[in-house]
Amino acid sequence: MPERIVIVGAGFGGIAAAQALRHADAQVTLIDRTNHHLFQPLLYQVAGAALSPADIAAANRALLRRNRNTRVLMAEVAGVDAAAKQVRLNDGRRLPFDRLILATGAAYSFFGHDDWAEHAFVLKSIDDALAIRAAVLGAFERAEQCDDPAELRRLLTFAVVGGGPTGVELAGTIAELARTTLARDFAHVDPRGARVVLCEMGDRILAGFDPALSASARRALESLGVEVRTGAAVETIDDGGLTVGGERIDAAAVLWAAGTAARPAATWLDAAAARNGAVKVRPDCSVPGHPDIFAIGDVASFQGDDGPLPGLAPVAKQQGKYVGRLIAGRIAGTPDPGPFRYRDYGSMAVIGRSRAVAEIGGMKLKGFVAWLAWSLVHLMLLVDFRSRVAVYVNWSWSWFTYGRGARLLTGYAPDPGEKPKPPVLEG
Amino acid sequence: MPERIVIVGAGFGGIAAAQALRHADAQVTLIDRTNHHLFQPLLYQVAGAALSPADIAAANRALLRRNRNTRVLMAEVAGVDAAAKQVRLNDGRRLPFDRLILATGAAYSFFGHDDWAEHAFVLKSIDDALAIRAAVLGAFERAEQCDDPAELRRLLTFAVVGGGPTGVELAGTIAELARTTLARDFAHVDPRGARVVLCEMGDRILAGFDPALSASARRALESLGVEVRTGAAVETIDDGGLTVGGERIDAAAVLWAAGTAARPAATWLDAAAARNGAVKVRPDCSVPGHPDIFAIGDVASFQGDDGPLPGLAPVAKQQGKYVGRLIAGRIAGTPDPGPFRYRDYGSMAVIGRSRAVAEIGGMKLKGFVAWLAWSLVHLMLLVDFRSRVAVYVNWSWSWFTYGRGARLLTGYAPDPGEKPKPPVLEG
Repeated sequence: MPERIVIVGAGFGGIAAAQALRHADAQVTLIDRTNHHLFQPLLYQVAGAALSPADIAAANRALLRRNRNTRVLMAEVAGVDAAAKQVRLNDGRRLPFDRLILATGAAYSFFGHDDWAEHAFVLKSIDDALAIRAAVLGAFERAEQCDDPAELRRLLTFAVVGGGPTGVELAGTIAELARTTLARDFAHVDPRGARVVLCEMGDRILAGFDPALSASARRALESLGVEVRTGAAVETIDDGGLTVGGERIDAAAVLWAAGTAARPAATWLDAAAARNGAVKVRPDCSVPGHPDIFAIGDVASFQGDDGPLPGLAPVAKQQGKYVGRLIAGRIAGTPDPGPFRYRDYGSMAVIGRSRAVAEIGGMKLKGFVAWLAWSLVHLMLLVDFRSRVAVYVNWSWSWFTYGRGARLLTGYAPDPGEKPKPPVLEG
Repeated sequence: MPERIVIVGAGFGGIAAAQALRHADAQVTLIDRTNHHLFQPLLYQVAGAALSPADIAAANRALLRRNRNTRVLMAEVAGVDAAAKQVRLNDGRRLPFDRLILATGAAYSFFGHDDWAEHAFVLKSIDDALAIRAAVLGAFERAEQCDDPAELRRLLTFAVVGGGPTGVELAGTIAELARTTLARDFAHVDPRGARVVLCEMGDRILAGFDPALSASARRALESLGVEVRTGAAVETIDDGGLTVGGERIDAAAVLWAAGTAARPAATWLDAAAARNGAVKVRPDCSVPGHPDIFAIGDVASFQGDDGPLPGLAPVAKQQGKYVGRLIAGRIAGTPDPGPFRYRDYGSMAVIGRSRAVAEIGGMKLKGFVAWLAWSLVHLMLLVDFRSRVAVYVNWSWSWFTYGRGARLLTGYAPDPGEKPKPPVLEG
């Protein structure tokens, strides 16, 4: 009987592992609680109404159609019984495995302020992105009909917490949406008067980049009208806004991009975890004490040459490919490869429509050149041809016209104070 | 002071009226409870996962950007005070008007069985379409994991009630989704075994068409595997399926396309209404006794040469254009045109990927030729260039690959019996 390999999670890591196992003599089961793989680096463009959900997602079954040894299961995992070698699903079923790959990713963390989650938007799933889109477009619609100056000011204010790439991209895309696409469309309010505040606790945004690029990104954001506040710790978040560095900011929406925590795989295994909850793994990505259980991507804490590897898509993809090949080799009886080594091709963050900062193999790029590099890389990375086509068309079109094709507001909650709540399956 | 003209509803009628008033010396206000105009004839393709919402919708503000005399208001209308010439919004505000155009459309009607609404899906809004998509794709996902033969049979059964164009299009698109796109993607179930039942109370489907075309459409549906039941009246609908003509059919989803009723404009005005609730209007589309209040499209009952005009997009568009011009002429002081006359360019219904039936100016078309005609007409009709591009790309792609680009399942309710309920603003 072929080995049973279970992969939990259809993100970059899980899909890469399944692809690497495609020719292995194994029964592979990929479990995810949604039916689709998401190209997360472009999710902020769905929030900003520039792309449609289908442009950046692909059905897991379609992606793995040619993997004849792979079964896709849409289900939610409740835990792992490591001794019995079984995955427990939350409907009570148990799935036996010979080897297990945990690729469950990370969720947003509010640093112990769980009540903030009710009042702030995050950006992990398609539903999250559509909720942000509805909140932003809905605020302009309400502002158009508002006569109270204080409430009008609030409705045109958007606060983003966290100056990493996601926060920078969200702040840039909202500022640009207001200043270009929406600018001509309202009779009573001028969307260009919208205020976008980016709050970062540290002393600079994009702290993972070279200080010169941080400064360049800051200038680019400011030229789009974003107020960048560094050294500003959030004290409270409520439905009407937030308090940051002692100052009250009334806002139509607070977007949280400040910190993530790994999903609970470590507790499933009773394994040692890093501070963010990620499972500490061995150099072959296996969990200490469980040579047949692997953790990859954001749910794993892998010690690289300069500390733990960051929670980035390329890390997850490379680890998925590595572990898939490692297992395929063990099944085939070939010797193990050496330990996993991360190849860092660089990192990028986009500011608005045509600027970016990038560090690629020691090179530091900024402005339009960096944006071109970013566009090329992301087009190449997109997971299937279908996505590439649609994204390309949408992009070209909105680039030339400043229009936003996907400017739809569905599931809109008409009550002013209320945050639209789409039916959310994933955190 | 220029005349104040209020248009309620941004469907085909309301948008056409606003466009016809573009150069009038007037203050036009278009009110809709969503922010977008919807190309309803293609909505079933969103339900069938072939198109994305943004492909068939456009923001009202973007559509009317060049209408400098027009203000767009996202709000819900609660009633009309005809004596005071005011529209009442449901937040208590009142909007004065000199002339009013009611274009509020129709909603699905369950013929007095309002409890069926809880258990059946309808197809009027984007949220409706996404709910159908989630129910159908979710049923296959659950079937893949189901061991109980009776439940498995239920999960692969879909019932469509109503043999008009919408019912025919829905049944065709679901049957084809199962037999082509999904066919290769499941390990345990064969989606080609899915059962799609189309129930029509009358003695033939597409009763508005020539009997020969009805018969052709029936054969086309049957060749896709759809069971067509005519003379079959629905007796009950519940969460597990429906009873029709004395027979119980357990189904994963029941889709209701059997009858509509006008939205409540007639009661707002205390005006005479047809049996479906539509306001009976005079030959100039005005409401009897209210020469400055007009009703157009599905919310109006207009007596044509052969009885009341049908609830079709071309009727609404032509009436919108007529009333817009009529009012513009009155403002400019030119003589009124003659009474409204509907120009019937024909009607069409699509069966699956490459067949249709059409009656165009006395010509009867069927099969691929009819489908080509249908495609051309619908591409031409699409409201803005952006939509045309994206639909064309998506279509071409899925036509050649049998793939469905938009196969996303968001907001999926994992509980078997439960109908996914997206946050619905419109009925």
